[in-house]
Amino acid sequence: MTSAPKSNAVQPIIWLGDRLRLLDQRLLPLEETYLDCRSAAEVAEAIHGMAVRGAPAIGIAAAYGLVLAVRGDLKAFEAAEQVLAASRPTAVNLRWALARLRGLWQRGADAAALELEARRIHEEDLAQNLHMGELGAALLPQHARVITHCNTGALATGGHGTALGVIRTAYAQGKIGQVYNTETRPWLQGARLTAWELMREGIPAKLIADGAAAHLMRIERIDWVIVGADRIATNGDTANKIGTYMLAVAARRHGAKFMVVAPSGTFDLDCPNGEAIPIEERIATELTEFRGQQIAPGGMQAFNPVFDVTPAELIDAIVCERGVIANPTVDKITALLR
Amino acid sequence: MTSAPKSNAVQPIIWLGDRLRLLDQRLLPLEETYLDCRSAAEVAEAIHGMAVRGAPAIGIAAAYGLVLAVRGDLKAFEAAEQVLAASRPTAVNLRWALARLRGLWQRGADAAALELEARRIHEEDLAQNLHMGELGAALLPQHARVITHCNTGALATGGHGTALGVIRTAYAQGKIGQVYNTETRPWLQGARLTAWELMREGIPAKLIADGAAAHLMRIERIDWVIVGADRIATNGDTANKIGTYMLAVAARRHGAKFMVVAPSGTFDLDCPNGEAIPIEERIATELTEFRGQQIAPGGMQAFNPVFDVTPAELIDAIVCERGVIANPTVDKITALLR
Repeated sequence: MTSAPKSNAVQPIIWLGDRLRLLDQRLLPLEETYLDCRSAAEVAEAIHGMAVRGAPAIGIAAAYGLVLAVRGDLKAFEAAEQVLAASRPTAVNLRWALARLRGLWQRGADAAALELEARRIHEEDLAQNLHMGELGAALLPQHARVITHCNTGALATGGHGTALGVIRTAYAQGKIGQVYNTETRPWLQGARLTAWELMREGIPAKLIADGAAAHLMRIERIDWVIVGADRIATNGDTANKIGTYMLAVAARRHGAKFMVVAPSGTFDLDCPNGEAIPIEERIATELTEFRGQQIAPGGMQAFNPVFDVTPAELIDAIVCERGVIANPTVDKITALLR
Repeated sequence: MTSAPKSNAVQPIIWLGDRLRLLDQRLLPLEETYLDCRSAAEVAEAIHGMAVRGAPAIGIAAAYGLVLAVRGDLKAFEAAEQVLAASRPTAVNLRWALARLRGLWQRGADAAALELEARRIHEEDLAQNLHMGELGAALLPQHARVITHCNTGALATGGHGTALGVIRTAYAQGKIGQVYNTETRPWLQGARLTAWELMREGIPAKLIADGAAAHLMRIERIDWVIVGADRIATNGDTANKIGTYMLAVAARRHGAKFMVVAPSGTFDLDCPNGEAIPIEERIATELTEFRGQQIAPGGMQAFNPVFDVTPAELIDAIVCERGVIANPTVDKITALLR
């Protein structure tokens, strides 16, 4: 990741030629520990176990995982591809990154060419984020007061971040007045990871409970809600971390604008709209326990969807590296991606 | 609490003549431990420390606290009243219960008369809840699918509950299809206490993250959102646990109806509207830590309001023991309370 700007110290994905070094995000913010993966299976396990998370970061890690697999034997490609694709089924970037390497591999590329492509995916992601940061920051007013959700920063990407990348760039431009970041139940990525990134850079930020966002919008001016995306349908409907839709509904009521920031690899043109996006549900214990401590009574059932869908009508702007789509529609999206 | 119905096994407040026995709600659902308070100061400490919580329950406990103070010396009334009033400044029921005893005390009532009045407050609360349960349940359709927030059950009241009392009564009538209860960050009263009460009675319930409610309303039919209240202004604007307002906004968007259930002691006719209700903010560590374990990085700031205000325009019905106020207005409320 030699192209990472010096100012951005967070390096969650480091390619070392013979192994992939991952910042173990499960231990943040209390410990900065790195995990070395020497095989595709180890990378898949790191993705599945959420040592690395965030749609773009997962795609990049998976690409390096394929590279680790083909170093000894190019024929190991397909088995590795399968295990990596299964590691987190929802993020569309994962499938997209694997497909990029598959295209090359089918045309007979060798291990060195595949490694170059993985590094390119990584570097492109960072470059795209820096560009999206500029595009998104240009939409913000001076002294902008913004809310962000989940973690979409350097930790979730090849560096800089998507939604948090916009906030980073805007802060560097002196445009940020106040950031509020949701804790993001049940995994607390906001409380753990986004808070950690914001504090490292000295960006003025306050943590809020997910349910406090509408109250905050009611009592104080919020200019923009800025979020990432795990998948964007052809009509602009956007799947993102659970809680995003509620923020969009509250934002519309209070006149706050709503921005989705995601690279073009996040669009899924096979999905006509949000109804077609599968929503992963996870086990009840993510809500009924906390780090192994029981919270709810034993046997309590839970409904634990990981993502929700925000309809395009509630989105004021989708920022991707190819440009800004205001009030997204099928026509605008297909025109930009064509 | 001899008048509690046999079917309702939850007895969080038990008056024993010389002491007040409180179910320590901080340890639920893992432990059912009782705390004996022998003085007003001990009751105030239990309220402040949240061994007992919920606006009506706090009022009842405070009334018994005064009784403990005057048993030896009627002149101890005012000092005890002061320490109890300061124990949780927001809940209006606390002030209301203390004022009821003060009225009697000023007219020269003795300790026995004050004890009788405290028992009456307790018994009235239970009777009111049972009546509100009937009134609220009558509004629900068959196979009702409802969302509730925080804990408003037997644990929060003199028995049966307010919003959860409506669900209890409706369940006894065979009208409940499915309950979803929010975990209610940051204190997790929903995950800990409401889940415990629902499971004890076998009411079909699933726990959800606070941020998942809008998604749930989008993908499944929800008939009513049913909540309690900490204070209701003269125009119907309602202060309740943080996250309530967000539920009301989402409910209106999805055609789910919104019901507030609270005894008439919850109305504050000194408050013309929600703007006049002070919103308690608490320390950052309630969000940045969990049971002493650090979650967010050290020094992270937080905005941690305990309550929010739901405007009357989003409330379809306020259920109090005097009747149901549909689409509340100043005129309807003052007419009912007159």
